Amino acid sequence: MTMLPMTPPTKPSKPALSTTREENFPEWFQAVIKEADLAENSCVRGCMVLKPNGYAIWEQVQQQFDPMLKSLGVQNAAFPLFIPLQYFQREAKHAQGFATEVAVVTHRRLEMNADGVLVPAAPLEEPLVVRPTSEMIIGDSMSRWIHSHRDLPLKLNQWCSVVRMEMRPRLFLRTAEFWWHEGHSAHATAADAQEHTHETFKLYKEFVTNTLAVPVITGEKIPSERFAGAERTFTLEAMMQDRKALQAATSHYLGQNFAKAMGIEFQNADGAKEFAYTTSWGMSTRIVGAMIMVHADDDGLRLPPRIAPQQVIILPVIPKEELRSEVMAYAQKVKEALSALMYHGRPLAVAIDSRDIRGGDKNWQAIKKGVPLRIEIGPREVQSRQLVVSRRDLPTGSKGVFSLDQVVANVVAVLDEQQALLFNQAQAVLNSSIRTDIRTLDQLKQFYGAATDEEGQGGGQGWVRAKWCGDEAALEVLKPMKLTIRCIPLDADTSEGTCILTGRPATTEVLIAKAY
Amino acid sequence: MTMLPMTPPTKPSKPALSTTREENFPEWFQAVIKEADLAENSCVRGCMVLKPNGYAIWEQVQQQFDPMLKSLGVQNAAFPLFIPLQYFQREAKHAQGFATEVAVVTHRRLEMNADGVLVPAAPLEEPLVVRPTSEMIIGDSMSRWIHSHRDLPLKLNQWCSVVRMEMRPRLFLRTAEFWWHEGHSAHATAADAQEHTHETFKLYKEFVTNTLAVPVITGEKIPSERFAGAERTFTLEAMMQDRKALQAATSHYLGQNFAKAMGIEFQNADGAKEFAYTTSWGMSTRIVGAMIMVHADDDGLRLPPRIAPQQVIILPVIPKEELRSEVMAYAQKVKEALSALMYHGRPLAVAIDSRDIRGGDKNWQAIKKGVPLRIEIGPREVQSRQLVVSRRDLPTGSKGVFSLDQVVANVVAVLDEQQALLFNQAQAVLNSSIRTDIRTLDQLKQFYGAATDEEGQGGGQGWVRAKWCGDEAALEVLKPMKLTIRCIPLDADTSEGTCILTGRPATTEVLIAKAY
Repeated sequence: MTMLPMTPPTKPSKPALSTTREENFPEWFQAVIKEADLAENSCVRGCMVLKPNGYAIWEQVQQQFDPMLKSLGVQNAAFPLFIPLQYFQREAKHAQGFATEVAVVTHRRLEMNADGVLVPAAPLEEPLVVRPTSEMIIGDSMSRWIHSHRDLPLKLNQWCSVVRMEMRPRLFLRTAEFWWHEGHSAHATAADAQEHTHETFKLYKEFVTNTLAVPVITGEKIPSERFAGAERTFTLEAMMQDRKALQAATSHYLGQNFAKAMGIEFQNADGAKEFAYTTSWGMSTRIVGAMIMVHADDDGLRLPPRIAPQQVIILPVIPKEELRSEVMAYAQKVKEALSALMYHGRPLAVAIDSRDIRGGDKNWQAIKKGVPLRIEIGPREVQSRQLVVSRRDLPTGSKGVFSLDQVVANVVAVLDEQQALLFNQAQAVLNSSIRTDIRTLDQLKQFYGAATDEEGQGGGQGWVRAKWCGDEAALEVLKPMKLTIRCIPLDADTSEGTCILTGRPATTEVLIAKAY
Repeated sequence: MTMLPMTPPTKPSKPALSTTREENFPEWFQAVIKEADLAENSCVRGCMVLKPNGYAIWEQVQQQFDPMLKSLGVQNAAFPLFIPLQYFQREAKHAQGFATEVAVVTHRRLEMNADGVLVPAAPLEEPLVVRPTSEMIIGDSMSRWIHSHRDLPLKLNQWCSVVRMEMRPRLFLRTAEFWWHEGHSAHATAADAQEHTHETFKLYKEFVTNTLAVPVITGEKIPSERFAGAERTFTLEAMMQDRKALQAATSHYLGQNFAKAMGIEFQNADGAKEFAYTTSWGMSTRIVGAMIMVHADDDGLRLPPRIAPQQVIILPVIPKEELRSEVMAYAQKVKEALSALMYHGRPLAVAIDSRDIRGGDKNWQAIKKGVPLRIEIGPREVQSRQLVVSRRDLPTGSKGVFSLDQVVANVVAVLDEQQALLFNQAQAVLNSSIRTDIRTLDQLKQFYGAATDEEGQGGGQGWVRAKWCGDEAALEVLKPMKLTIRCIPLDADTSEGTCILTGRPATTEVLIAKAY
């Protein structure tokens, strides 16, 4: 049964955004971000600014995910931003993996030249790499902190930004600086480390699914797609509305590679020295981009209630100045009544848009910002003690008129319904866009051919689950189609079959897709 | 009346730290940090690692101060870590102020040389400065975001780290990278901007005084001590136990300097273009260093309960393995009973030290970590249903035996008492160490002479409030004594007097001290 039932509009409204998903998905994505005022490109090439509306979403990610990490015994800490070059290159694959995109600090002051311009001065004896990830610098601390098996497991995390010098940035998806959390752990046994990799991975799935309402396929990366230096990499792959894949979070089992590189040794229970087994795992501001591309529509952002910085926005409509005080007083009363409710362990977040602009503008701005519930209050509502309520998940223009008591009694259930509806819509897209009937390279080319323009910018068309024989060289044929093996799904079918690329016998099932 | 009265020890215990405050204050400070496991120097010269125990305190600062900022209408956001060199140098004083200590990124990749060593490659067209502070980069965004007086005031904040290449680091006090929040606002009028400077400043005082239990003298910096580019700088000066001063937080009124440098213009109510008036304000991880140097004693850290990550630690003592389960069960019961209590708006934070080490070691470690209340539980306590309680603010060895009901009924009041006691002790040190009877340069030299060794490392001796005529050149005589004018106190006496440095007539009263 639907709480607070709403009447759909008599005719659909024109899309609020200048570009629709259908017309041009990448432009639509930029339009959603711009109209919801989430982020912008900065004057520093490749670097974005997270504007207050965008940061508020990231702040919710931090506030809600951090306690989940702590429940695993993870401790927050903060490690240097810089990595001495010689440390950075201690693990060969790792260094190679990141060498092409690191910012390098070479000087430690500026001096005025003869033209009165500041130029770099005081060269450093050893250059410093701005962290692209912190295995090395945290490994260095671990090597000092860990002595005995009693010091293990050690589970550390930091919330910070990292830098990978991306020269073709796209807001949220690919920027030279991005924000993330990065967890790093050390264990006494390979089994314990692998178990921890799975635990963090399960946590990501729980958070992304339940809080961001983003369905995912979970799986393991094939060797060539692993994190540089990892022995195993697990990924959550989410499907965007253009059917491309986006890696939402990853969890890596690093074996003893980094422990050997950084000297993370401990005395085991038998008194012998052993290298620790380490893991790392992270989730970044990309996840906000994923959430946008999964849920937003042609009217702008749609925020799942559980991640929304505000669940409810009250829009006072004031046609005449003399009516202001009574409308605002009623709006305040409604806010107080709703703010007293609890929503998933925190007070329901309710805002009033008290700006002195037209009611219609307020309404459209709230739509474009994706606020789950809107409540309009004008002089008529004050008279009748009613509220005009709209849900962001129903077609724009749907409305219902309810008493404050009705809203108070049902708002939490309606928000839960909305959370479920957004998830179910995304799950339906995912389910209906995975093909298991494509078995040969020709079929694959035919399926993706139509959707791939020269830049590889076309839609993703869908995902394909098929057999692969494990031959990495055979993956070359996927490149012109901008396709990659996203993962070996955890629920992969392991029966005997035929490799989609080589036609050889194969048992491994993989997920193939175009990806962000 | 004291709740949960405790019996003092029959004889004082030996100091737990290897060095006492009396013996060597700087070494004692390092010992406190080491024994409480708060931070360490990293392999990157000048950069510290905030270890989990130290980060937990900083996390409390963030969690408790952030809502205070938001109550002023401040919005969090995130801005690039890098500042293009040409932007950095747009405000001459600002650029000069920081030029001697900035990290400069000059390359954006690494390449393997003939010896197989990675070296910087791909020079940037324009070097990037790693932010020492973000007036420029945030000003750049403000110049795009602000168009009309309706967009003002704009109040932004970010929690991040900044880099000032310090080559003689001291943990928490002076490091090449440190963590802080930095707030930046723009206003339509000078009056509004100045009022905001005071509002943030009042917030700092409230937080530092009430939550960190650190008393301060508030005042304005003299021109030569202002933030580079500011028109007015307000400071909180805290007195360490060695009587040196430490600047705990600052709030700057920047006038139109940065608005002109970065083009932050708006259309005022009359339709004319005007430059905005901006402010900035910050508090860093230095404040944790201040709190340590104000409250710790010769047994280690003493945490004011309101900032302590844990208010209570339960120490199970298990003499025989067969007693473990009943001791642990009772410890768990005590934890649950106490965790159900609220303490200043959050659940009381209670931990159990369940490690398999000696009870005496657990106790001393908890003392050195500064946990406000310790509860020992051994087989005897399980039998008698009693708890052995110790307060970190009373002489080590003081104890009381109480029922769980007594502890539950009184624990919040006892913590409040402890918070007040720590503040009052610090206030007494401050009050008794400010001299107002020193009027001439000779008296000043005599007062500080004894405490100043060649490195300026001696104790601070005390602070002097005296008249100053405003002649900055006259400050030279203070340098050999390592003295500076900390501020013009907000409650300065403005009567006619004689300048302590020049003997000329003077009305301005200043605070003189050695400082960190």
